[in-house]
Amino acid sequence: MKNIPYKIYLSEEELPRQWYNVRADMKTDHSPILNPATLKPVTVSDLEPVFCTELAKQELNTTDRFIDIPDEVRDFYKMYRPSPLVRAYCLEKALGTPAKIYYKFEGQNTSGSHKLNSAIAQAYYAKQQGLTSLTTETGAGQWGTALSMACGYFGLKLRVYMVRVSSEQKPYRKAVMETYGAKVIPSPSDTTNVGRKILAEFPDNTGSLGTAISEAVEVAVSTEGTRYVLGSVLNQVLLHQTIIGLESKKALEKCDEYPDIVIGCAGGGSNLGGLMAPFMQDKLAGRHAPHFIAVEPASCPSLTRGKFAYDFCDTGKVTPLARMYTLGSGFIPSANHAGGLRYHGMSPILSQLYHDGYLDEARSVEQTKVFEAAELFARVEGTLPAPESSHAIAVAIQEALKCKETGEEKTILFGLTGTGYFDLAAYMAYNAGTMTDYIPTDADLERGFSCIPHLDGIQ
Amino acid sequence: MKNIPYKIYLSEEELPRQWYNVRADMKTDHSPILNPATLKPVTVSDLEPVFCTELAKQELNTTDRFIDIPDEVRDFYKMYRPSPLVRAYCLEKALGTPAKIYYKFEGQNTSGSHKLNSAIAQAYYAKQQGLTSLTTETGAGQWGTALSMACGYFGLKLRVYMVRVSSEQKPYRKAVMETYGAKVIPSPSDTTNVGRKILAEFPDNTGSLGTAISEAVEVAVSTEGTRYVLGSVLNQVLLHQTIIGLESKKALEKCDEYPDIVIGCAGGGSNLGGLMAPFMQDKLAGRHAPHFIAVEPASCPSLTRGKFAYDFCDTGKVTPLARMYTLGSGFIPSANHAGGLRYHGMSPILSQLYHDGYLDEARSVEQTKVFEAAELFARVEGTLPAPESSHAIAVAIQEALKCKETGEEKTILFGLTGTGYFDLAAYMAYNAGTMTDYIPTDADLERGFSCIPHLDGIQ
Repeated sequence: MKNIPYKIYLSEEELPRQWYNVRADMKTDHSPILNPATLKPVTVSDLEPVFCTELAKQELNTTDRFIDIPDEVRDFYKMYRPSPLVRAYCLEKALGTPAKIYYKFEGQNTSGSHKLNSAIAQAYYAKQQGLTSLTTETGAGQWGTALSMACGYFGLKLRVYMVRVSSEQKPYRKAVMETYGAKVIPSPSDTTNVGRKILAEFPDNTGSLGTAISEAVEVAVSTEGTRYVLGSVLNQVLLHQTIIGLESKKALEKCDEYPDIVIGCAGGGSNLGGLMAPFMQDKLAGRHAPHFIAVEPASCPSLTRGKFAYDFCDTGKVTPLARMYTLGSGFIPSANHAGGLRYHGMSPILSQLYHDGYLDEARSVEQTKVFEAAELFARVEGTLPAPESSHAIAVAIQEALKCKETGEEKTILFGLTGTGYFDLAAYMAYNAGTMTDYIPTDADLERGFSCIPHLDGIQ
Repeated sequence: MKNIPYKIYLSEEELPRQWYNVRADMKTDHSPILNPATLKPVTVSDLEPVFCTELAKQELNTTDRFIDIPDEVRDFYKMYRPSPLVRAYCLEKALGTPAKIYYKFEGQNTSGSHKLNSAIAQAYYAKQQGLTSLTTETGAGQWGTALSMACGYFGLKLRVYMVRVSSEQKPYRKAVMETYGAKVIPSPSDTTNVGRKILAEFPDNTGSLGTAISEAVEVAVSTEGTRYVLGSVLNQVLLHQTIIGLESKKALEKCDEYPDIVIGCAGGGSNLGGLMAPFMQDKLAGRHAPHFIAVEPASCPSLTRGKFAYDFCDTGKVTPLARMYTLGSGFIPSANHAGGLRYHGMSPILSQLYHDGYLDEARSVEQTKVFEAAELFARVEGTLPAPESSHAIAVAIQEALKCKETGEEKTILFGLTGTGYFDLAAYMAYNAGTMTDYIPTDADLERGFSCIPHLDGIQ
């Protein structure tokens, strides 16, 4: 038996040189993204007004299994990667489980999460193309912070539309983004047509990722030298996030380990998609593979209670249509929902893998249960986790406790996507006992589903 | 020439097994700590009502050069140590300097700083002694957070007296401490005699570390099963913090490097003391050694403008007397001073080494210059630094720019003691242009000096 350290670090030399494109191995590709005007599959030239050209190509790439990580991106990665794979000895002891729990910790950078992995790649391609400015949206603020850091590094201007309720809950997130030079605008705002329209209809609108996306896209397509970037959902983002899984697999191999269960929280799906990618490659090739579990908030349950259908990626219906698990582009999670994982849809790749049974299972967890797991984790493992990541912690604990009952020594891998240092208001509410749970009723969901377009002859 | 990676990690096996006690090598020991009632050197039994017995012994230990790190403490260390030594390639490039800049990064844990290194040791000894509860004070909140984590881990109760101005500036620091189970009380408070006395005299008192110490000590000595712990200044704390320097030296050796300059910020002195310890051992042994620079805020300049004299360690004058560089135990830094480094005195060990010329130099930096350096660092190196650490960054930049002028390829090592994730209010003020500098006038300092006791026949 190998003596496994608490933290397994790969060397800089072992930092992967390529991202892994799971689409090259998928048995059934996800349904094509549709141009909303023509309802035809989008082409690179359809996407170019919105995305950098290289990223548009990555978005539609179904053939290249591996894509080189540019040297400049890899150099930036070296400032905070390879990230540690941690053996959760103290959590195992606290639970009294025979399971071996590992987590890949992506919070050791100032953005506080895995989002930086794609932010720096997207900013790089924008810089390469000679663009001067980017726009994006952010919910809890992790993505906006990551992109601010990336744009600060490459000297690009950045405008961030931040979901209003988050920007009010998290003034310091705004301060971090501004420190790295970004301009932050609470959404819905009066700076765009779509924002003004929504505010005219619902003046007290607390915002949603869908709305913030509409605003950011509108500014990008109407401003010289500017493109839009997104922090999750898209194929290109999952591609960049495969660095998480590739490093995890390599680090586990050093410990002579292979996971029985892989667990990730899922909002738009980029973290889970990235974490499980190289293990999914095993499953798609018919080799021994883990049981995959996606964990989502009970308040925003796209995989567990959503519909698998074509839908808009934004609330303003300006983006292409994707076939995915969705709660409807008009769905807005309850304002009492703390943290991210508030997107109405799910990555088309993950949606397809779930639909086809490769992503084995989706589970939803209520908010107070999430914080209960978060606080236990913080006290025994030291790190204060992000609410998003704590969804994965909660299910990892569930699985470890099952092992305690059965006596099985399963190897569990979960993604600790980030830290909760900007989520203290939510922790305060939890500790004060004022945090509540919200589970949408079927009627609530029906209202969201009513926004899903009916596309005759297209499924 | 070796190809040096961005981050140099020691393995878990290379984690030091002993702390280094610099007093065993000092040419002149610091003057004895005095019992304030008798003015005689304190003994272990004098200290036992306040400190854990083992820590009291460490405090007075002048003979053991190395002291074993208990296995339980080492196990906890493994959750976040060895900490990375980082080669600041991007900062070097941004400055255009031929200097090689390294920093030891202590911010990769939830306390956000090096303070955890001593907190976990002190909590361990308390637990070993069968104590049930600890008290302490905190200024900016890093120490209080670290001790909350340590007490949460060992199941000890903790009461933290937090300098009132900091607790108002940083509500989320309080929330983190509470998440780990601590009770946080703004100081001065009405929970102690000394607090009530100060409030009666100055109802609007914004607090000071000196006052918070008085309160915490009063509660410790008057509560069953309770002791007081301190996060800096003391010999025991410097001892525990030598883990920083020991790891740094070993990691530099792996790169075939030895520093020409070692820079650390200095409030109570524990970080700088810990960082420079093994290099100081070289200097004390007459071997080749670096040039040491202590950096302090211009608003709280104990080394650069203080007196080398016996003084109380707290404002309420209940603690022993130490001979140190001091601004007087009644000195309170301006409320516009953001962050830590606000203690009126300096570690007796560091004070003695400075007095004797082994600690070569002290330099003070104004607050806005500190944030200027912090923001440059954040943008090029990624990590948002703590204001405290940014004092060291500012001087590292000064030295690197000197090398640019002279063409010297000096090797600079500085301590990046922590992250600024809870200091965003200060960053906001800096970015808004509302941050001001405060340099005490000679008259301000004289008011502080007037508190320094006159001890006839004792120097």
